[in-house]
Amino acid sequence: MQKDCIYLDNNATTKVDPKVVEAMLPYLTEHYGNPSSMHTFGGQVGKAVKQARENVAALLGAEPSEIEYNSGGTEGDNAAIRAALQAQPSKKHIITTQVEHPAVLNLCKQLQKQGYKVTYLSVNRQGQLDLDELDNALTNDTALVSVMYANNETGVIFPVEEVGKRAKAYGALFHVDGVQAVGKIPVNMKNSTIDMLTLSGHKIHAPKGIGAIYVRKGVRFRPLVIGGGQERGRRAGTENVPAIIALGKAAELELQHLESAGKRQKTLRDRLENAIIESVGECEINGGETQRLPNTTNIGFKYIEGEAIL
Amino acid sequence: MQKDCIYLDNNATTKVDPKVVEAMLPYLTEHYGNPSSMHTFGGQVGKAVKQARENVAALLGAEPSEIEYNSGGTEGDNAAIRAALQAQPSKKHIITTQVEHPAVLNLCKQLQKQGYKVTYLSVNRQGQLDLDELDNALTNDTALVSVMYANNETGVIFPVEEVGKRAKAYGALFHVDGVQAVGKIPVNMKNSTIDMLTLSGHKIHAPKGIGAIYVRKGVRFRPLVIGGGQERGRRAGTENVPAIIALGKAAELELQHLESAGKRQKTLRDRLENAIIESVGECEINGGETQRLPNTTNIGFKYIEGEAIL
Repeated sequence: MQKDCIYLDNNATTKVDPKVVEAMLPYLTEHYGNPSSMHTFGGQVGKAVKQARENVAALLGAEPSEIEYNSGGTEGDNAAIRAALQAQPSKKHIITTQVEHPAVLNLCKQLQKQGYKVTYLSVNRQGQLDLDELDNALTNDTALVSVMYANNETGVIFPVEEVGKRAKAYGALFHVDGVQAVGKIPVNMKNSTIDMLTLSGHKIHAPKGIGAIYVRKGVRFRPLVIGGGQERGRRAGTENVPAIIALGKAAELELQHLESAGKRQKTLRDRLENAIIESVGECEINGGETQRLPNTTNIGFKYIEGEAIL
Repeated sequence: MQKDCIYLDNNATTKVDPKVVEAMLPYLTEHYGNPSSMHTFGGQVGKAVKQARENVAALLGAEPSEIEYNSGGTEGDNAAIRAALQAQPSKKHIITTQVEHPAVLNLCKQLQKQGYKVTYLSVNRQGQLDLDELDNALTNDTALVSVMYANNETGVIFPVEEVGKRAKAYGALFHVDGVQAVGKIPVNMKNSTIDMLTLSGHKIHAPKGIGAIYVRKGVRFRPLVIGGGQERGRRAGTENVPAIIALGKAAELELQHLESAGKRQKTLRDRLENAIIESVGECEINGGETQRLPNTTNIGFKYIEGEAIL
């Protein structure tokens, strides 16, 4: 990266924390055993993988047994949605929003072709959901409600617990794409209505290619990727050990810094927005009047194309 | 790893080549852009990802456009098999072998529950397939034949082109799990009957968590993981850049060393087997009379449990 350039697209991907690189490097080099192999060489690696799972669980206020590793947010969203539908095969209705990640939206479009009915909730000019629209959409045929925790473009935080309560009243499973929220705001699964939550490593200063799903104890889960018994049968495939160790370290660091980083980011974000409004004039903060992620800004500039500004 | 210990389980996982670690490290640290992002920071990474794809293609004698990255062999097998079935939705028969990887066997078992008929070809005492059994199993309802290139336990190399010719005669797609063969013996897709071939990074001295599928030009392919348009719509999810760069480097190194390494491994393997036979006596080389991977041995010891020997 050029030295005179400031990277501001931390919602697309983040820089891997040097401490995370340091933690994972030994597992790329000397500790390369397969954690599922029978010989003891694998067992040593298995312990580190277990510790990482405890760290990820702690970040979410979850139990380690409720965390499964996978290859990232897109796979996580796919796995969670398909698992929810398989858990309730007779129900054929899904509720989600118009502003979800393509992993959710494009999968839902495909599921429509396979006979599912999908309701896409709208957002208003401030990027907010209308809970009445949700109430009107829910039926006893609703297998799944899938709503993101916070939006990647506007940073608007959705009232997930309010959504979850309503989903529960109709016996629907509740999946939350937490990719943009985890590590930026406190996300706690204890006493939550969330059944499944997706997170992505490379959004929290771990590398690309690693993610996890939280699956609440007692929720039936069928794997998307079938094969060996890794992740207690919930995600087959040799464990991506260095990346798992990295995710564990990143989770540990995020938990330590969550509050202070959030306040700093919010201050910097607000200062940037005020400066742009003062100097440009013809623009508007999208979602400015709502609860937002502290690190995200979305500014509507009049008369200018988006790509030119980027 | 302890210094007095020799790691012999390179079919489970290999050590990442130091040159591979060196190649990927900059992409874990300074070059952390998202290759699919619009700003130019991503573009720089995109070029490196393209070069890596060319290297993987070269290792297989394929075109770069025939290579899609994914998270590894298990995902690759799942994706290839599901894509083959979606490409011919009216056909409901699959032929595979009894000795495939669990990624193939367990997926096939699940597909049986969903109405597919699956024929599992047997192997003889030497670990060999019987092509007459294949001939008898093939029908016009066969959507897919999925046979591994070489077996991970015995090292026996299957006559994949013979299998492919027979599959083609019935209009079936032909998938090969190449995880144990790629990088150990020459594997060339030019003039091959193989439609799809799976490979895994961590079996060829790249890290865990990265793999690729070869999909022959013209073969219809539907993604297993749905979402963004990465990998030209064939595998959604932010590209695992450092691991992709690593796979590209590993492919480049494998291509350089393929022949000399194979000869050296075969010599060492044969020496190990002869020494064990001489000193132990009561044992037998499984697959010893067949074409085998140069790096693999499978010895039957009488009166002793497998775990104790490991």
